[in-house]
Amino acid sequence: MHKIPVGVLGASGYAGRELCALVAQHPNLTLAFATANAQRGESLELPSGAVRFVATEDAALGTAQLIFSSLPHGASAAWVARARAAGARVVDLSTDLRLGNGAAEQVPYGLTEWQREAVRGAQVVANPGCYPTATLLGLLPLFEQDLIAPGATVQVSAASGVTGAGLTARLDLLFGEVSENFRAYGVGNTHRHLKEMRAATHMFGADVDLLFTPHLLPAARGILATITVPLNQALADPLALWQQRYVHEPFIEVTPALPELRQVQHRNVARITVRAVEHVRTPTLQVFSAIDNLVKGAAGQALQNANLMLGLDETAGLPQ
Amino acid sequence: MHKIPVGVLGASGYAGRELCALVAQHPNLTLAFATANAQRGESLELPSGAVRFVATEDAALGTAQLIFSSLPHGASAAWVARARAAGARVVDLSTDLRLGNGAAEQVPYGLTEWQREAVRGAQVVANPGCYPTATLLGLLPLFEQDLIAPGATVQVSAASGVTGAGLTARLDLLFGEVSENFRAYGVGNTHRHLKEMRAATHMFGADVDLLFTPHLLPAARGILATITVPLNQALADPLALWQQRYVHEPFIEVTPALPELRQVQHRNVARITVRAVEHVRTPTLQVFSAIDNLVKGAAGQALQNANLMLGLDETAGLPQ
Amino acid sequence: MHKIPVGVLGASGYAGRELCALVAQHPNLTLAFATANAQRGESLELPSGAVRFVATEDAALGTAQLIFSSLPHGASAAWVARARAAGARVVDLSTDLRLGNGAAEQVPYGLTEWQREAVRGAQVVANPGCYPTATLLGLLPLFEQDLIAPGATVQVSAASGVTGAGLTARLDLLFGEVSENFRAYGVGNTHRHLKEMRAATHMFGADVDLLFTPHLLPAARGILATITVPLNQALADPLALWQQRYVHEPFIEVTPALPELRQVQHRNVARITVRAVEHVRTPTLQVFSAIDNLVKGAAGQALQNANLMLGLDETAGLPQ
Amino acid sequence: MHKIPVGVLGASGYAGRELCALVAQHPNLTLAFATANAQRGESLELPSGAVRFVATEDAALGTAQLIFSSLPHGASAAWVARARAAGARVVDLSTDLRLGNGAAEQVPYGLTEWQREAVRGAQVVANPGCYPTATLLGLLPLFEQDLIAPGATVQVSAASGVTGAGLTARLDLLFGEVSENFRAYGVGNTHRHLKEMRAATHMFGADVDLLFTPHLLPAARGILATITVPLNQALADPLALWQQRYVHEPFIEVTPALPELRQVQHRNVARITVRAVEHVRTPTLQVFSAIDNLVKGAAGQALQNANLMLGLDETAGLPQ
Repeated sequence: MHKIPVGVLGASGYAGRELCALVAQHPNLTLAFATANAQRGESLELPSGAVRFVATEDAALGTAQLIFSSLPHGASAAWVARARAAGARVVDLSTDLRLGNGAAEQVPYGLTEWQREAVRGAQVVANPGCYPTATLLGLLPLFEQDLIAPGATVQVSAASGVTGAGLTARLDLLFGEVSENFRAYGVGNTHRHLKEMRAATHMFGADVDLLFTPHLLPAARGILATITVPLNQALADPLALWQQRYVHEPFIEVTPALPELRQVQHRNVARITVRAVEHVRTPTLQVFSAIDNLVKGAAGQALQNANLMLGLDETAGLPQ
Repeated sequence: MHKIPVGVLGASGYAGRELCALVAQHPNLTLAFATANAQRGESLELPSGAVRFVATEDAALGTAQLIFSSLPHGASAAWVARARAAGARVVDLSTDLRLGNGAAEQVPYGLTEWQREAVRGAQVVANPGCYPTATLLGLLPLFEQDLIAPGATVQVSAASGVTGAGLTARLDLLFGEVSENFRAYGVGNTHRHLKEMRAATHMFGADVDLLFTPHLLPAARGILATITVPLNQALADPLALWQQRYVHEPFIEVTPALPELRQVQHRNVARITVRAVEHVRTPTLQVFSAIDNLVKGAAGQALQNANLMLGLDETAGLPQ
Repeated sequence: MHKIPVGVLGASGYAGRELCALVAQHPNLTLAFATANAQRGESLELPSGAVRFVATEDAALGTAQLIFSSLPHGASAAWVARARAAGARVVDLSTDLRLGNGAAEQVPYGLTEWQREAVRGAQVVANPGCYPTATLLGLLPLFEQDLIAPGATVQVSAASGVTGAGLTARLDLLFGEVSENFRAYGVGNTHRHLKEMRAATHMFGADVDLLFTPHLLPAARGILATITVPLNQALADPLALWQQRYVHEPFIEVTPALPELRQVQHRNVARITVRAVEHVRTPTLQVFSAIDNLVKGAAGQALQNANLMLGLDETAGLPQ
Repeated sequence: MHKIPVGVLGASGYAGRELCALVAQHPNLTLAFATANAQRGESLELPSGAVRFVATEDAALGTAQLIFSSLPHGASAAWVARARAAGARVVDLSTDLRLGNGAAEQVPYGLTEWQREAVRGAQVVANPGCYPTATLLGLLPLFEQDLIAPGATVQVSAASGVTGAGLTARLDLLFGEVSENFRAYGVGNTHRHLKEMRAATHMFGADVDLLFTPHLLPAARGILATITVPLNQALADPLALWQQRYVHEPFIEVTPALPELRQVQHRNVARITVRAVEHVRTPTLQVFSAIDNLVKGAAGQALQNANLMLGLDETAGLPQ
């Protein structure tokens, strides 16, 4: 079968490398180019063979039917425009075009399980952040069924592996600083993912406040979000709500047991459970949602969206 | 100077070994015996020399002026009684005599910064659990100043290193299962520390619900508690409240920066900061409190209490 | 296509679980049964669905065309006999039938790249240990070309992740004991893998001594063997020797760069490089060989052998 | 008692920070200044209070009786000269003045247990590297008793935690790259510590080749050197040789058991055992030597040397 050429801009980071590896194993796609300015001329070794990085300026944008942009936040939007001008569809993994980030043009928000139909016909999709993916997939059934207590504060206490910060030479990300350590960071409205989650909340018309507390784990990959939600009514069988919502979703695993990072690493899934909170006065629920930040939280979901945009099987080439 | 003989029951676990090491370096104490039934006859190597474990039955209880019990929950209370009958003071590190655990006799609760005067004159002290230590030290100023919104839910999202589960041969604590992993556990009123925290809350007469969500970290030592508290009023300078409360406390570090596990490991301190939560409708505060679960959360605080009970300098022999 | 039924005895350990997962994703195989005495009735969750463990006694051995035995050393041989009596081919992952372990019957030794033809026609194959796999694949070209200095000592300094010790509840394998630690173990002829390596050496007729020093890594998976070999002659282009020997091998990667554990984890490959040692008086070579102890060092190689025994494509179902 | 003022040049790295922490707890020393060009004006928080970094140019060199230089290799020698001109004694932790590095002036090599008397009277001491410290302390009894087979190759296979590479923002030292990984590096005469070990070997007049293979551990601290030595005679009781040599040494622990990193972390000790190698044709010994690369391998040994140079108790202020 003829394979569809796709390109990756910004392919030397964690998400970009993951994208190249996924494309290399995809039954219907082939990698037309992978760009990395600082590493141009170097090779990325994949099981299927080596990929040679070119400078982004030198990429033959027009040779790709779809382009993934893993360029840095701020630098990506301009290249999305150039890729479109060259005739390619685009999945943008940066924040530039995402909800809540002030983009001039509104493009579909690629939380696939929520926006599948908008993604299917899109020329450009803004791929969600890793924390918003874990959080919003956990909250989706409550938003859709309008079950959150009005005026309530939804608390998202989340922890992420260090690859969430990208492949950047920062002292605070050295093994010697992260091993045997744990800390909160980006508290108090400072994390850019909070804007994205708030904007999604507004799209649902939910009258809630969000309190987001990210933590840095001594682990390479994975996010666990522990979300506490005051409800407007007690639910007799809360788990059933998630089971029903996601029963046909190939990449959402709803289970009675509490999810663990190990269960989702290297897989394009979100694993979710819920628990009614006892011994508090107002009906309250805890949602536990785990993803691999580089797969369902980045490259995997980007490929899931690309599959839809290109008319392929949504699950093609994705590690379940 | 003549050194005071002390004994350690249940010395082969993590807290017991830490106690032996602390006693060995203490300027005023000497180790009279260390018991460990399964390991009797074996030696614990310390920088100061080897300590030989004896069976608990064979310990000469009467030779110690003070005895630490690190025996398992359920087995400890009976030995506390025998130690007292032999004339020794006791610091019990098990849950047996703690608040909220249904003990017949009420003994002082050794959260030193709260109950110092009761500890000073006590024959027996119940040493707090590790999670309650981190949590209650974080909440103390709010309880004492009656600042928590009545009827509110105080959320404690905490993460602990695996030594918090003790030196027990459980498959789920193997390196191969914990490394690169993260998960919640003991949710929904099942963790024994929740009872202890609730009982402390009741002692303050606070009308609040507690929601406690512990997580297991891929780290050996340390607890970080991220605590969210709805207030009955906004605070102009929240950090000042903690700074004033703890200004004379040698083992409490109040800092503007978010605490990290690395800053407290191997030290008998709690490191605390607070942040007002913006963009939520009700005045809300987040308290971040970090301790070493084996030191301030167990052996260190036990020694701090023992120092008081024996009329020694409270800080003697404690790693600051 | 009709799938071939295979069974796994002792499926609850690390290698057994890995085997079940590999079989579940194999295009030509289906899992007839998976046994685990202590966990019988429990389920192993796989992406493809749950597998229910049965007691080994209750396994319908006759329903499988091939049976993998991951039963404990000592217990496996008897079940291999029963499996054969039931008409199944067998890949035995225990030491029971391996070289150097005193087995009554000699069965092919499943180091596939060395013994491929013997494996192809075999009813029973003894799957190699993880350390011997890494070591012998590194040494094979030297043995075959008779390049090792007679009477020399070949030094194998190797380090393994903790899953190499199996899923057993040992205190010394707890996260709290292994994290931030490193130690040698099993030195001095005590490691059972040394007998296996010696026996292989004898099969080549090589007149060498083996010095094997294993170490325990603070990592879950992977073995790196650093092997030092005195040669009977200097080699002009040592890497070429490995490249030529393995050029047609789908699971051996010979590279100029030093191999890392990350490059081989979750893959059925050995990654090897060699370096001439300068500034020593006798021609000496260092071979660096890395594998995933649970894949190429256990379950993956077992499946590679099973593919051959069943007349399937050798690479079917194996993560490259 | 009046405390002796000392200074630290290059105090922001791992060794420099460790030095500041040790000095802060030293009974006889006080920190006159700590320099760090990039971090000047910032503070290093220590249990005893904060230390403010000044630029190296701004340090009042003359106010210190002894200066530790943790400046980068190449940059240190000039500052050692300036410190001496200002009247201070100097312990240089860089390679600049060490054996085998081509320094114009020969200063005592501060492997204390070997060169104690030379250190005692020295104005300047070159503090050994971390790998040479672990290795040479392991080999010292063999060198001194002339027991190594002439012409033999002594193999040093060693593994170090990542702090050995310093506090430098390198991508290959990120947690995401090091966790669950293991690799050799610096093989083939490229590691600068090899020159230092060779020069020490020459000082003993030993006719041996050295083969040094360092590896990078997924751990923050600690070095384990596994050293294999062909002997010129078999030893009846090899351990006794080390026990006798080090019986009066406060910082050398000779034990029958194999040493582990955990036993030496945060302590100024080397922990050593030896094992005769059986089943090889020539008398051969393995020496296992473990240190904390930042303490006995850097700051701790530097302080041990400083104590001697200043006429203090050699063990003062050192964590045993």
